[in-house]
Amino acid sequence: MADLHIQIDRGKGGIAGQIASELRDSIRGGRLTPGTRLPATRDLATDLQVSRGVVVEAYEQLVAEGFLVSRVGVGTQVTPKNAGRTALKSRDPSPPRPPRPPGPARRARTVASHPPYYGHRPTSPDLGHFPRERWLAAVRHVLATVPSEAFDYGDPGGVPELREELAAYLRRVRAAEVGQENLVIVGGVAQGLSLVLHVLTQRRALRLAVEDPTSHRQVPLLRRAGAQLVPVPVDGQGLDVRKLSGDAVLVTPAHQFPTGVVLSPERRAALMEWAYAGNRVVLEDDYDAEFRFDRDPVGCLQGLAPDRVILSGSVSKALAPGLRLGWVAAPPDLAEAIRRARGEQDLGSPVIEQYALAHFLRTGGYDKHLRRMRREYRRRRDALVSALAAELPEVRVRGIEAGLHVYLELPPGWDEPRTVRAARELGMSVEPVEPMRETPGPAAVVVGFARLPAHRAAEVVSGLKVRMSGQSVD
Amino acid sequence: MADLHIQIDRGKGGIAGQIASELRDSIRGGRLTPGTRLPATRDLATDLQVSRGVVVEAYEQLVAEGFLVSRVGVGTQVTPKNAGRTALKSRDPSPPRPPRPPGPARRARTVASHPPYYGHRPTSPDLGHFPRERWLAAVRHVLATVPSEAFDYGDPGGVPELREELAAYLRRVRAAEVGQENLVIVGGVAQGLSLVLHVLTQRRALRLAVEDPTSHRQVPLLRRAGAQLVPVPVDGQGLDVRKLSGDAVLVTPAHQFPTGVVLSPERRAALMEWAYAGNRVVLEDDYDAEFRFDRDPVGCLQGLAPDRVILSGSVSKALAPGLRLGWVAAPPDLAEAIRRARGEQDLGSPVIEQYALAHFLRTGGYDKHLRRMRREYRRRRDALVSALAAELPEVRVRGIEAGLHVYLELPPGWDEPRTVRAARELGMSVEPVEPMRETPGPAAVVVGFARLPAHRAAEVVSGLKVRMSGQSVD
Repeated sequence: MADLHIQIDRGKGGIAGQIASELRDSIRGGRLTPGTRLPATRDLATDLQVSRGVVVEAYEQLVAEGFLVSRVGVGTQVTPKNAGRTALKSRDPSPPRPPRPPGPARRARTVASHPPYYGHRPTSPDLGHFPRERWLAAVRHVLATVPSEAFDYGDPGGVPELREELAAYLRRVRAAEVGQENLVIVGGVAQGLSLVLHVLTQRRALRLAVEDPTSHRQVPLLRRAGAQLVPVPVDGQGLDVRKLSGDAVLVTPAHQFPTGVVLSPERRAALMEWAYAGNRVVLEDDYDAEFRFDRDPVGCLQGLAPDRVILSGSVSKALAPGLRLGWVAAPPDLAEAIRRARGEQDLGSPVIEQYALAHFLRTGGYDKHLRRMRREYRRRRDALVSALAAELPEVRVRGIEAGLHVYLELPPGWDEPRTVRAARELGMSVEPVEPMRETPGPAAVVVGFARLPAHRAAEVVSGLKVRMSGQSVD
Repeated sequence: MADLHIQIDRGKGGIAGQIASELRDSIRGGRLTPGTRLPATRDLATDLQVSRGVVVEAYEQLVAEGFLVSRVGVGTQVTPKNAGRTALKSRDPSPPRPPRPPGPARRARTVASHPPYYGHRPTSPDLGHFPRERWLAAVRHVLATVPSEAFDYGDPGGVPELREELAAYLRRVRAAEVGQENLVIVGGVAQGLSLVLHVLTQRRALRLAVEDPTSHRQVPLLRRAGAQLVPVPVDGQGLDVRKLSGDAVLVTPAHQFPTGVVLSPERRAALMEWAYAGNRVVLEDDYDAEFRFDRDPVGCLQGLAPDRVILSGSVSKALAPGLRLGWVAAPPDLAEAIRRARGEQDLGSPVIEQYALAHFLRTGGYDKHLRRMRREYRRRRDALVSALAAELPEVRVRGIEAGLHVYLELPPGWDEPRTVRAARELGMSVEPVEPMRETPGPAAVVVGFARLPAHRAAEVVSGLKVRMSGQSVD
């Protein structure tokens, strides 16, 4: 049984988060070794003079992140050595993978028929809330304060001030294990993935496992970057890791697109095991991580295995896609290769807005905006989900824990094209799931709620009910 | 003899430019056909009631651009049909080029030994003059006026408002033949070239001729994008077109880097002939075109052969490299392929600064800033060139017509490393030419004058004289 020394600062709030953070650090630092049993929640709560619920929340958080496992009859323990994540600590070099014969990539039938679409997407934020005044203030601050040399050719890996602020943010909010030497500033997740795949495919032919269903907009990008795609099914726990093959995998563990599933703790552990077993790489698209509504977001995979996982994220949901600002966090040698590739492709991102984002992060403007938007989006989600439950109980609503969209499994008689048509006529932001699938599955649509005001949800859902029942009589 | 109908608006000023523009339009529109002889300058001057010098200037401009040729005993005529540019008008499909055996690219020995360098370059503008207030005003205008949708995922080819303004600017200032359908907004010339080469090398293996000497910073970029490089020497007239081989060529006709040579009219014509003879592509890096000091800048090659030439440019010299804003002008099908590649690589450039640049162009801020900087840089160039002539007549100064650097051919006894060391100790912005050469050549250095105030030029050059003479005695 572990003897825990946990310091709590009651003035700071977020006690469960503090406990989780201390435990996480102890596991990473080797003070809590694999297999160690943790005190019962009741005992630790008494020790720390906190409510038991707080300890339960902290343990659950770390179970969700894969640092702990909880078993009937055993209690909670640090994830044992045979599970994937501990390989990270021992840093045993994995045996080299036998080379695979280069086979033709399985062609997703969705590619040619779906040219890229730019414009409002169901997953876009409410751009009416873009903080124009505060962003202008940040730009004003930058233009008033940076030295002239800041406007010159810069480091293609990004402005150091921004990397510093982002590293602190990702450590704090996403439990990432990252310093500025791991970070490359990019023009969003798309460019992050392009660069990572460019670097990886220069080293060897790359068979990249992708979730099925997945974002059909990303498929041409992955192909253009040189990857051969291998679809792997997603079920109620997220990516089905047992069916994984390939040299690398691209996952959206925080909120899978499109199904909205949060990758389960067991699957997280299995995914890490897979990565370490074969010297494989996990590309983590930290999709929708900013908007987890009912509890703290699950920490990113990268924090669990910083030598195996490449994390990509952006401000596209938190601020606006049009800013084209994102990041890649990778092990230092790979980060350097990505930075160099960027320097030999486009010399890096524009600098003024990098400084502006650094200022926005440093002064707390970013957090404040996120908190405000989280409250607002939660209201909108609740209104939509309630309306659906009341008016259309036959529609199964999935993926509501996080993000800016819900996944609706359609009842018999509702096909995707008709549902999409009806919903669009009502002004809903909706897309069919069929084009995102490699393997046929039950009819479903993705509905964005970021731009659907709470007071309009009931009216829109009623309208959908009328249209769908009316038309199904036709 | 052509019967010319030229309208002059005397209120507008720039009479020579107006005459050149009318003649250019007549040639493009087919009203002046190949081989047509133009009136003697004296006669046209009388007709138009302008001074003869004005007509001479207009003719010279069009000769420099390749629209006209001037021969002893014949006078001035529209470039005849056997020269390259007229193939453009007839649009005869060129016979297909026999496929070349893919040979190994000749490796420039400069690549591995010169990692990219970021920071002040001799060719960087004076960033102390970046118009911070006016740029902030443009951003303020954008944030106060654009609709919210502007912050969403945009057209990866760039904001339409900016493409419209840029097309007008390039037509007016660079005599480019370009509409917004030809333009793709990119993050500078580096990304423009990366994308163009990416698209071209996807179609076929590409042997790309590059100037020798050339920018050693660009070589890794060209290689990474998949091109096989073929060096072609540069002499006093620019790229030696007779020695060209390959499927495409990258040129800097407005002000060759590093030699500063402006591509001669004969070479321009020969280059077009080469392009049409083999269905080849000319990549025009419109390098330093903003800063032509003693006359109007020569129009770009693209205006001469818009179906053969891909023009790249940026605001890096005019405003700041850190803005990472540039453009590519290409025939519509290629522009579409580049736009699509961009959409599948990084989804395009940040939007706010695109709108800001559009506003800056529309309101005349860009032109005003350029005029101001052109005066200032001219003063600095004159001061440096005068000081060199007075103090160091043994140094041959080249490439002073345009741009932000001069090319100094060193006298016997001055080697490049020692000269560079001495000049840097004096705070000069200087680089050796040797790393830019594929074929050994006379010792030379590139000296930037953009950040050397006119009142310091004499002192710096005297210092250089002292150091070089002192050290050569050692």
